[in-house]
Amino acid sequence: MRIPGTAKGVSVQQRLNEAAKQLFGYDCDIVGCSRTDSGVHANEFCVTVSKKKESFIETSIPISRIPQAMSHWLPSDIAVFAAEEVDDSFHPRYDVKYKEYEYKILNRQVRDPFLEGRVWHCPKQIDEEGFENMKRAAAMLVGRKDFSSFMAADSTVKDTVREVFSAEIEREGDLVTFRVSADGFLYNMVRIFTGTLVEVAYGKIAVEDIPHIIEAHDRRRAGCTAPPEGLYLNRVVY
Amino acid sequence: MRIPGTAKGVSVQQRLNEAAKQLFGYDCDIVGCSRTDSGVHANEFCVTVSKKKESFIETSIPISRIPQAMSHWLPSDIAVFAAEEVDDSFHPRYDVKYKEYEYKILNRQVRDPFLEGRVWHCPKQIDEEGFENMKRAAAMLVGRKDFSSFMAADSTVKDTVREVFSAEIEREGDLVTFRVSADGFLYNMVRIFTGTLVEVAYGKIAVEDIPHIIEAHDRRRAGCTAPPEGLYLNRVVY
Repeated sequence: MRIPGTAKGVSVQQRLNEAAKQLFGYDCDIVGCSRTDSGVHANEFCVTVSKKKESFIETSIPISRIPQAMSHWLPSDIAVFAAEEVDDSFHPRYDVKYKEYEYKILNRQVRDPFLEGRVWHCPKQIDEEGFENMKRAAAMLVGRKDFSSFMAADSTVKDTVREVFSAEIEREGDLVTFRVSADGFLYNMVRIFTGTLVEVAYGKIAVEDIPHIIEAHDRRRAGCTAPPEGLYLNRVVY
Repeated sequence: MRIPGTAKGVSVQQRLNEAAKQLFGYDCDIVGCSRTDSGVHANEFCVTVSKKKESFIETSIPISRIPQAMSHWLPSDIAVFAAEEVDDSFHPRYDVKYKEYEYKILNRQVRDPFLEGRVWHCPKQIDEEGFENMKRAAAMLVGRKDFSSFMAADSTVKDTVREVFSAEIEREGDLVTFRVSADGFLYNMVRIFTGTLVEVAYGKIAVEDIPHIIEAHDRRRAGCTAPPEGLYLNRVVY
Protein backbone atom coordinates (compact mmCIF):
# COMPACT_ATOMS: atom_id res chain seq x y z
CA MET A 1 0.00 0.00 0.00
CA ARG A 2 1.60 3.24 -1.11
CA ILE A 3 0.76 6.53 0.49
CA PRO A 4 1.68 9.89 -1.00
CA GLY A 5 0.97 13.06 0.87
CA THR A 6 2.17 15.60 3.33
CA ALA A 7 3.77 13.61 6.11
CA LYS A 8 3.31 15.25 9.48
CA GLY A 9 5.55 13.41 11.94
CA VAL A 10 3.98 10.55 13.86
CA SER A 11 0.48 11.59 12.83
CA VAL A 12 0.67 9.82 9.44
CA GLN A 13 1.10 6.45 11.19
CA GLN A 14 -1.65 7.40 13.62
CA ARG A 15 -4.04 8.43 10.84
CA LEU A 16 -3.39 5.16 9.00
CA ASN A 17 -4.09 3.19 12.16
CA GLU A 18 -7.39 5.03 12.63
CA ALA A 19 -8.38 4.55 8.97
CA ALA A 20 -7.52 0.82 9.03
CA LYS A 21 -9.59 0.35 12.18
CA GLN A 22 -12.57 2.14 10.60
CA LEU A 23 -12.25 0.13 7.41
CA PHE A 24 -11.63 -3.36 8.79
CA GLY A 25 -13.36 -3.02 12.15
CA TYR A 26 -10.44 -4.09 14.34
CA ASP A 27 -7.02 -2.82 15.50
CA CYS A 28 -4.25 -3.20 12.92
CA ASP A 29 -0.45 -3.10 12.90
CA ILE A 30 1.01 -0.61 10.43
CA VAL A 31 4.70 -0.84 9.50
CA GLY A 32 6.20 1.85 7.23
CA CYS A 33 9.15 1.89 4.80
CA SER A 34 10.92 4.79 6.50
CA ARG A 35 10.57 7.43 9.15
CA THR A 36 8.79 10.64 8.15
CA ASP A 37 10.02 13.95 9.53
CA SER A 38 7.63 16.79 10.18
CA GLY A 39 7.15 18.99 7.09
CA VAL A 40 8.58 16.41 4.69
CA HIS A 41 6.47 15.04 1.80
CA ALA A 42 6.07 11.67 0.09
CA ASN A 43 4.99 11.00 -3.48
CA GLU A 44 5.26 7.31 -2.69
CA PHE A 45 5.36 5.54 0.66
CA CYS A 46 4.87 1.88 1.44
CA VAL A 47 3.37 0.29 4.54
CA THR A 48 2.15 -3.15 5.50
CA VAL A 49 -1.20 -3.47 7.25
CA SER A 50 -1.91 -6.56 9.32
CA LYS A 51 -4.43 -7.54 11.95
CA LYS A 52 -2.98 -6.80 15.40
CA LYS A 53 -1.15 -9.87 16.82
CA GLU A 54 -2.17 -11.96 13.77
CA SER A 55 -0.75 -11.99 10.27
CA PHE A 56 -3.48 -11.31 7.79
CA ILE A 57 -6.26 -8.82 7.29
CA GLU A 58 -9.64 -10.54 7.19
CA THR A 59 -12.08 -8.58 5.08
CA SER A 60 -14.74 -9.02 2.44
CA ILE A 61 -13.58 -5.85 0.63
CA PRO A 62 -11.91 -6.76 -2.70
CA ILE A 63 -8.26 -5.66 -2.80
CA SER A 64 -8.94 -3.41 -5.83
CA ARG A 65 -11.40 -1.38 -3.72
CA ILE A 66 -9.04 -0.88 -0.76
CA PRO A 67 -7.28 2.34 -2.02
CA GLN A 68 -10.50 4.31 -2.41
CA ALA A 69 -12.15 2.78 0.67
CA MET A 70 -9.18 3.50 2.95
CA SER A 71 -8.62 7.00 1.48
CA HIS A 72 -12.20 7.77 2.49
CA TRP A 73 -11.17 7.44 6.16
CA LEU A 74 -7.96 9.47 5.80
CA PRO A 75 -7.50 13.27 6.10
CA SER A 76 -7.12 15.23 2.85
CA ASP A 77 -3.29 15.26 3.01
CA ILE A 78 -2.94 11.46 2.93
CA ALA A 79 -4.26 9.09 0.25
CA VAL A 80 -3.82 5.41 -0.60
CA PHE A 81 -3.39 4.84 -4.34
CA ALA A 82 -2.49 1.15 -4.58
CA ALA A 83 -2.90 -2.00 -2.51
CA GLU A 84 -1.66 -5.53 -3.01
CA GLU A 85 -1.40 -8.75 -1.04
CA VAL A 86 2.09 -9.66 0.11
CA ASP A 87 3.71 -12.72 1.60
CA ASP A 88 4.07 -12.87 5.39
CA SER A 89 7.87 -12.63 4.97
CA PHE A 90 7.73 -9.21 3.25
CA HIS A 91 9.08 -6.30 5.30
CA PRO A 92 8.47 -2.73 4.04
CA ARG A 93 11.72 -1.39 5.53
CA TYR A 94 14.23 -4.27 5.41
CA ASP A 95 13.28 -5.38 1.88
CA VAL A 96 13.86 -1.98 0.24
CA LYS A 97 16.38 -2.26 -2.64
CA TYR A 98 16.68 1.47 -3.06
CA LYS A 99 14.87 4.71 -2.37
CA GLU A 100 14.80 7.90 -4.37
CA TYR A 101 14.36 11.37 -2.88
CA GLU A 102 13.73 14.69 -4.58
CA TYR A 103 14.59 18.06 -3.10
CA LYS A 104 12.93 21.11 -4.71
CA ILE A 105 14.41 24.60 -4.59
CA LEU A 106 12.53 27.69 -5.80
CA ASN A 107 15.20 30.03 -7.14
CA ARG A 108 13.57 33.40 -7.79
CA GLN A 109 13.32 36.68 -5.98
CA VAL A 110 9.65 36.50 -4.96
CA ARG A 111 8.08 33.46 -3.28
CA ASP A 112 5.31 31.44 -5.01
CA PRO A 113 2.07 31.06 -2.99
CA PHE A 114 1.25 27.81 -4.84
CA LEU A 115 4.57 26.28 -3.73
CA GLU A 116 4.39 27.48 -0.12
CA GLY A 117 5.57 24.69 2.21
CA ARG A 118 6.53 22.58 -0.82
CA VAL A 119 9.93 24.05 -1.79
CA TRP A 120 12.95 25.74 -0.23
CA HIS A 121 12.79 29.34 -1.38
CA CYS A 122 16.33 30.58 -2.23
CA PRO A 123 15.82 34.16 -3.54
CA LYS A 124 19.42 34.83 -4.64
CA GLN A 125 19.91 33.91 -8.31
CA ILE A 126 22.04 30.77 -8.93
CA ASP A 127 24.09 31.74 -12.00
CA GLU A 128 25.19 29.37 -14.78
CA GLU A 129 28.60 28.75 -13.18
CA GLY A 130 27.04 28.08 -9.78
CA PHE A 131 24.59 25.66 -11.39
CA GLU A 132 27.38 23.77 -13.19
CA ASN A 133 29.34 23.56 -9.92
CA MET A 134 26.26 22.15 -8.17
CA LYS A 135 26.04 19.43 -10.84
CA ARG A 136 29.73 18.56 -10.50
CA ALA A 137 29.50 18.47 -6.70
CA ALA A 138 26.39 16.23 -6.84
CA ALA A 139 28.22 13.75 -9.10
CA MET A 140 30.97 13.46 -6.45
CA LEU A 141 28.44 12.04 -3.96
CA VAL A 142 27.85 8.92 -6.06
CA GLY A 143 29.40 5.67 -4.80
CA ARG A 144 29.75 3.49 -1.72
CA LYS A 145 31.08 5.83 0.98
CA ASP A 146 31.03 6.65 4.65
CA PHE A 147 28.62 9.59 4.65
CA SER A 148 28.93 10.53 8.33
CA SER A 149 29.76 14.14 7.39
CA PHE A 150 26.19 14.29 6.03
CA MET A 151 24.42 12.83 9.05
CA ALA A 152 22.58 14.85 11.74
CA ALA A 153 25.05 15.39 14.60
CA ASP A 154 22.67 13.85 17.15
CA SER A 155 22.17 10.60 15.23
CA THR A 156 23.53 7.49 16.96
CA VAL A 157 23.64 5.19 13.90
CA LYS A 158 26.89 3.16 13.90
CA ASP A 159 27.14 1.93 10.29
CA THR A 160 27.38 5.16 8.29
CA VAL A 161 28.36 3.58 4.95
CA ARG A 162 25.73 3.89 2.21
CA GLU A 163 25.77 3.43 -1.55
CA VAL A 164 24.51 6.41 -3.54
CA PHE A 165 23.45 5.18 -7.00
CA SER A 166 22.64 8.52 -8.61
CA ALA A 167 22.71 12.21 -7.65
CA GLU A 168 21.49 14.68 -10.26
CA ILE A 169 20.58 18.34 -10.50
CA GLU A 170 18.00 19.70 -12.94
CA ARG A 171 16.73 23.21 -13.59
CA GLU A 172 13.34 23.96 -15.14
CA GLY A 173 12.46 27.65 -15.07
CA ASP A 174 12.73 28.85 -11.46
CA LEU A 175 12.74 25.33 -10.04
CA VAL A 176 16.01 23.52 -9.22
CA THR A 177 15.54 19.84 -8.37
CA PHE A 178 18.09 17.56 -6.72
CA ARG A 179 17.27 13.86 -7.24
CA VAL A 180 19.22 11.20 -5.35
CA SER A 181 18.86 7.42 -5.00
CA ALA A 182 20.67 5.13 -2.54
CA ASP A 183 20.37 1.77 -0.80
CA GLY A 184 19.70 3.71 2.38
CA PHE A 185 19.92 7.22 3.85
CA LEU A 186 21.38 8.50 7.10
CA TYR A 187 19.33 10.86 9.23
CA ASN A 188 19.00 14.25 7.40
CA MET A 189 21.40 13.04 4.67
CA VAL A 190 19.44 14.43 1.69
CA ARG A 191 18.81 17.73 3.48
CA ILE A 192 22.54 18.13 4.33
CA PHE A 193 23.48 17.13 0.75
CA THR A 194 21.13 19.87 -0.48
CA GLY A 195 22.38 22.51 1.97
CA THR A 196 25.94 21.74 0.88
CA LEU A 197 25.09 21.88 -2.84
CA VAL A 198 23.37 25.25 -2.43
CA GLU A 199 26.48 26.59 -0.65
CA VAL A 200 28.50 25.28 -3.62
CA ALA A 201 26.11 27.11 -5.98
CA TYR A 202 26.68 30.38 -4.10
CA GLY A 203 30.48 29.90 -3.99
CA LYS A 204 30.64 29.39 -0.21
CA ILE A 205 32.00 25.86 -0.63
CA ALA A 206 34.39 24.94 -3.48
CA VAL A 207 33.54 21.93 -5.65
CA GLU A 208 37.05 20.60 -4.99
CA ASP A 209 36.31 20.49 -1.26
CA ILE A 210 33.53 17.91 -1.58
CA PRO A 211 35.88 14.85 -1.43
CA HIS A 212 37.61 16.36 1.62
CA ILE A 213 34.28 17.00 3.33
CA ILE A 214 33.32 13.35 2.74
CA GLU A 215 36.69 12.08 4.04
CA ALA A 216 36.55 14.29 7.15
CA HIS A 217 33.68 12.23 8.65
CA ASP A 218 32.74 15.42 10.47
CA ARG A 219 29.28 16.98 10.27
CA ARG A 220 30.76 20.46 10.84
CA ARG A 221 32.62 20.33 7.50
CA ALA A 222 29.46 19.99 5.35
CA GLY A 223 26.94 22.72 4.56
CA CYS A 224 23.72 23.62 6.34
CA THR A 225 20.70 21.33 6.71
CA ALA A 226 18.13 22.39 4.09
CA PRO A 227 14.63 22.91 5.54
CA PRO A 228 12.22 19.93 5.50
CA GLU A 229 9.56 21.45 3.23
CA GLY A 230 11.51 20.90 -0.04
CA LEU A 231 12.04 17.16 0.56
CA TYR A 232 9.99 14.42 -1.13
CA LEU A 233 10.37 10.66 -0.76
CA ASN A 234 9.79 9.93 -4.44
CA ARG A 235 10.19 6.18 -5.02
CA VAL A 236 10.59 3.06 -2.92
CA VAL A 237 11.81 0.04 -4.90
CA TYR A 238 11.73 -3.60 -3.65
CA MET B 1 1.03 44.96 -9.76
CA ARG B 2 0.07 41.36 -10.32
CA ILE B 3 -0.88 39.05 -7.50
CA PRO B 4 -1.11 35.29 -7.83
CA GLY B 5 -2.28 33.14 -4.95
CA THR B 6 -5.20 31.59 -3.21
CA ALA B 7 -7.88 34.23 -3.20
CA LYS B 8 -10.04 34.05 -0.10
CA GLY B 9 -13.04 36.34 -0.65
CA VAL B 10 -12.72 39.90 0.54
CA SER B 11 -9.60 39.12 2.55
CA VAL B 12 -7.23 39.44 -0.43
CA GLN B 13 -8.20 43.09 -0.83
CA GLN B 14 -7.92 43.56 2.92
CA ARG B 15 -4.49 41.93 3.06
CA LEU B 16 -3.26 44.15 0.22
CA ASN B 17 -4.53 47.23 2.01
CA GLU B 18 -2.71 46.22 5.19
CA ALA B 19 0.52 45.41 3.30
CA ALA B 20 0.42 48.73 1.39
CA LYS B 21 -0.07 50.64 4.62
CA GLN B 22 2.88 48.87 6.24
CA LEU B 23 5.06 49.44 3.20
CA PHE B 24 4.23 53.07 2.38
CA GLY B 25 3.22 54.27 5.84
CA TYR B 26 -0.19 55.66 4.93
CA ASP B 27 -3.65 54.43 3.89
CA CYS B 28 -3.94 53.39 0.24
CA ASP B 29 -6.72 52.74 -2.25
CA ILE B 30 -6.53 49.31 -3.91
CA VAL B 31 -8.60 48.64 -7.05
CA GLY B 32 -8.59 45.10 -8.51
CA CYS B 33 -9.18 43.72 -12.03
CA SER B 34 -12.02 41.41 -11.02
CA ARG B 35 -13.92 40.06 -8.07
CA THR B 36 -12.46 36.99 -6.36
CA ASP B 37 -14.77 34.30 -5.04
CA SER B 38 -13.89 32.30 -1.97
CA GLY B 39 -11.83 29.20 -2.84
CA VAL B 40 -10.90 30.46 -6.31
CA HIS B 41 -7.23 30.95 -7.29
CA ALA B 42 -5.30 33.45 -9.40
CA ASN B 43 -2.04 32.87 -11.26
CA GLU B 44 -2.19 36.51 -12.28
CA PHE B 45 -4.21 39.38 -10.85
CA CYS B 46 -3.79 43.09 -11.38
CA VAL B 47 -4.49 45.92 -8.95
CA THR B 48 -3.71 49.61 -8.81
CA VAL B 49 -2.37 51.06 -5.58
CA SER B 50 -2.74 54.77 -4.91
CA LYS B 51 -2.49 57.02 -1.88
CA LYS B 52 -5.93 57.44 -0.34
CA LYS B 53 -7.74 60.50 -1.78
CA GLU B 54 -4.67 61.40 -3.88
CA SER B 55 -3.41 59.90 -7.13
CA PHE B 56 0.13 58.74 -6.66
CA ILE B 57 2.14 56.70 -4.20
CA GLU B 58 4.93 58.74 -2.65
CA THR B 59 7.82 56.52 -1.69
CA SER B 60 11.60 56.32 -1.78
CA ILE B 61 11.44 52.56 -2.56
CA PRO B 62 12.55 51.91 -6.17
CA ILE B 63 9.78 50.32 -8.25
CA SER B 64 11.94 47.23 -8.91
CA ARG B 65 12.03 46.53 -5.16
CA ILE B 66 8.27 46.83 -4.62
CA PRO B 67 7.31 43.18 -5.40
CA GLN B 68 9.64 41.69 -2.77
CA ALA B 69 9.04 44.48 -0.25
CA MET B 70 5.26 44.27 -0.47
CA SER B 71 5.29 40.42 -0.48
CA HIS B 72 7.12 40.61 2.82
CA TRP B 73 3.99 42.14 4.39
CA LEU B 74 1.56 39.68 2.80
CA PRO B 75 0.45 36.25 4.10
CA SER B 76 2.03 33.18 2.46
CA ASP B 77 -0.88 32.63 0.05
CA ILE B 78 -0.53 36.04 -1.65
CA ALA B 79 2.57 37.40 -3.39
CA VAL B 80 3.37 40.38 -5.61
CA PHE B 81 5.62 39.43 -8.53
CA ALA B 82 5.69 42.56 -10.67
CA ALA B 83 5.10 46.28 -10.24
CA GLU B 84 5.08 49.14 -12.71
CA GLU B 85 4.08 52.79 -12.79
CA VAL B 86 0.89 53.56 -14.70
CA ASP B 87 -0.81 56.66 -15.96
CA ASP B 88 -3.56 58.17 -13.81
CA SER B 89 -6.10 57.24 -16.50
CA PHE B 90 -5.40 53.49 -16.24
CA HIS B 91 -8.19 51.39 -14.71
CA PRO B 92 -7.46 47.75 -13.80
CA ARG B 93 -11.03 46.60 -14.50
CA TYR B 94 -12.35 48.82 -17.30
CA ASP B 95 -9.15 48.66 -19.37
CA VAL B 96 -9.00 44.84 -19.56
CA LYS B 97 -8.90 43.64 -23.22
CA TYR B 98 -9.41 40.01 -22.29
CA LYS B 99 -9.05 37.60 -19.41
CA GLU B 100 -8.17 33.92 -19.50
CA TYR B 101 -9.37 31.37 -16.95
CA GLU B 102 -8.29 27.79 -16.40
CA TYR B 103 -10.40 25.13 -14.75
CA LYS B 104 -8.59 22.00 -13.54
CA ILE B 105 -10.28 18.61 -13.14
CA LEU B 106 -8.57 15.62 -11.53
CA ASN B 107 -10.00 12.57 -13.29
CA ARG B 108 -8.87 9.49 -11.38
CA GLN B 109 -10.38 7.19 -8.80
CA VAL B 110 -8.32 8.28 -5.78
CA ARG B 111 -7.81 11.91 -4.80
CA ASP B 112 -4.34 13.53 -4.83
CA PRO B 113 -3.22 15.13 -1.53
CA PHE B 114 -0.92 17.54 -3.39
CA LEU B 115 -3.87 18.86 -5.45
CA GLU B 116 -6.29 19.14 -2.53
CA GLY B 117 -8.28 22.38 -2.82
CA ARG B 118 -6.68 23.04 -6.23
CA VAL B 119 -8.75 20.83 -8.55
CA TRP B 120 -12.25 19.43 -8.92
CA HIS B 121 -11.93 15.72 -8.22
CA CYS B 122 -14.16 13.75 -10.65
CA PRO B 123 -13.45 10.06 -9.83
CA LYS B 124 -15.48 8.50 -12.68
CA GLN B 125 -13.27 7.89 -15.73
CA ILE B 126 -13.95 10.21 -18.71
CA ASP B 127 -13.58 7.86 -21.70
CA GLU B 128 -12.20 8.83 -25.11
CA GLU B 129 -15.66 9.49 -26.56
CA GLY B 130 -16.65 11.61 -23.57
CA PHE B 131 -13.44 13.60 -23.90
CA GLU B 132 -14.00 14.22 -27.62
CA ASN B 133 -17.56 15.35 -26.90
CA MET B 134 -16.25 17.75 -24.24
CA LYS B 135 -13.91 19.29 -26.83
CA ARG B 136 -16.70 19.66 -29.39
CA ALA B 137 -19.03 21.20 -26.80
CA ALA B 138 -16.32 23.66 -25.67
CA ALA B 139 -15.78 24.81 -29.28
CA MET B 140 -19.50 25.65 -29.50
CA LEU B 141 -19.09 28.26 -26.73
CA VAL B 142 -16.79 30.42 -28.86
CA GLY B 143 -18.25 33.64 -30.28
CA ARG B 144 -20.21 36.73 -29.34
CA LYS B 145 -23.33 35.42 -27.60
CA ASP B 146 -25.85 36.06 -24.87
CA PHE B 147 -24.53 33.71 -22.19
CA SER B 148 -27.34 34.20 -19.65
CA SER B 149 -27.87 30.41 -19.45
CA PHE B 150 -24.39 30.29 -17.92
CA MET B 151 -24.86 33.03 -15.33
CA ALA B 152 -25.61 32.46 -11.62
CA ALA B 153 -29.39 32.68 -11.20
CA ASP B 154 -29.10 35.38 -8.53
CA SER B 155 -26.96 37.71 -10.65
CA THR B 156 -28.61 41.00 -11.58
CA VAL B 157 -26.33 41.95 -14.51
CA LYS B 158 -28.39 43.32 -17.42
CA ASP B 159 -26.00 43.05 -20.39
CA THR B 160 -25.35 39.31 -20.65
CA VAL B 161 -23.62 39.35 -24.05
CA ARG B 162 -19.92 38.41 -23.96
CA GLU B 163 -17.39 37.43 -26.61
CA VAL B 164 -15.60 34.16 -25.95
CA PHE B 165 -12.36 34.15 -27.96
CA SER B 166 -11.22 30.60 -27.22
CA ALA B 167 -12.46 27.57 -25.26
CA GLU B 168 -10.23 24.52 -25.23
CA ILE B 169 -9.95 21.22 -23.41
CA GLU B 170 -6.65 19.44 -22.78
CA ARG B 171 -5.82 16.17 -21.05
CA GLU B 172 -2.42 15.41 -19.53
CA GLY B 173 -2.37 12.19 -17.52
CA ASP B 174 -5.15 12.40 -14.91
CA LEU B 175 -5.56 16.15 -15.31
CA VAL B 176 -8.22 17.63 -17.61
CA THR B 177 -7.89 21.39 -18.13
CA PHE B 178 -10.51 23.72 -19.60
CA ARG B 179 -9.01 27.03 -20.76
CA VAL B 180 -11.26 29.90 -21.82
CA SER B 181 -10.66 33.52 -22.78
CA ALA B 182 -13.26 36.26 -23.22
CA ASP B 183 -13.68 40.04 -23.16
CA GLY B 184 -15.58 39.55 -19.91
CA PHE B 185 -17.26 36.88 -17.82
CA LEU B 186 -20.69 36.71 -16.19
CA TYR B 187 -20.95 35.64 -12.57
CA ASN B 188 -20.02 31.91 -12.27
CA MET B 189 -19.78 31.63 -16.09
CA VAL B 190 -16.59 29.52 -16.19
CA ARG B 191 -17.80 27.26 -13.39
CA ILE B 192 -21.16 26.68 -15.16
CA PHE B 193 -19.33 26.11 -18.48
CA THR B 194 -17.22 23.49 -16.70
CA GLY B 195 -20.15 21.81 -14.95
CA THR B 196 -21.93 21.58 -18.31
CA LEU B 197 -18.86 20.19 -20.11
CA VAL B 198 -18.39 17.50 -17.45
CA GLU B 199 -22.05 16.50 -17.85
CA VAL B 200 -21.38 16.26 -21.61
CA ALA B 201 -18.33 14.06 -20.85
CA TYR B 202 -20.49 11.70 -18.79
CA GLY B 203 -23.27 11.60 -21.41
CA LYS B 204 -25.83 13.46 -19.27
CA ILE B 205 -26.01 16.35 -21.75
CA ALA B 206 -25.74 15.75 -25.53
CA VAL B 207 -23.21 17.83 -27.50
CA GLU B 208 -26.02 18.75 -29.91
CA ASP B 209 -27.94 20.38 -27.05
CA ILE B 210 -25.29 23.02 -26.38
CA PRO B 211 -26.64 25.53 -28.98
CA HIS B 212 -30.16 25.04 -27.59
CA ILE B 213 -28.93 25.59 -24.04
CA ILE B 214 -27.29 28.86 -25.14
CA GLU B 215 -30.42 30.01 -27.00
CA ALA B 216 -32.73 29.17 -24.09
CA HIS B 217 -31.31 32.05 -21.96
CA ASP B 218 -32.29 29.95 -18.97
CA ARG B 219 -29.85 28.95 -16.21
CA ARG B 220 -31.85 25.79 -15.54
CA ARG B 221 -30.99 24.36 -18.98
CA ALA B 222 -27.20 24.33 -18.41
CA GLY B 223 -25.25 21.89 -16.20
CA CYS B 224 -24.20 22.23 -12.59
CA THR B 225 -21.87 24.92 -11.21
CA ALA B 226 -18.42 23.34 -10.81
CA PRO B 227 -16.88 23.93 -7.35
CA PRO B 228 -14.62 26.99 -6.88
CA GLU B 229 -11.39 25.15 -6.03
CA GLY B 230 -10.58 24.14 -9.65
CA LEU B 231 -10.82 27.72 -11.01
CA TYR B 232 -7.79 29.90 -11.78
CA LEU B 233 -7.72 33.42 -13.19
CA ASN B 234 -4.76 32.79 -15.46
CA ARG B 235 -4.09 35.94 -17.49
CA VAL B 236 -5.29 39.53 -17.56
CA VAL B 237 -4.42 41.36 -20.77
CA TYR B 238 -4.64 45.16 -21.28
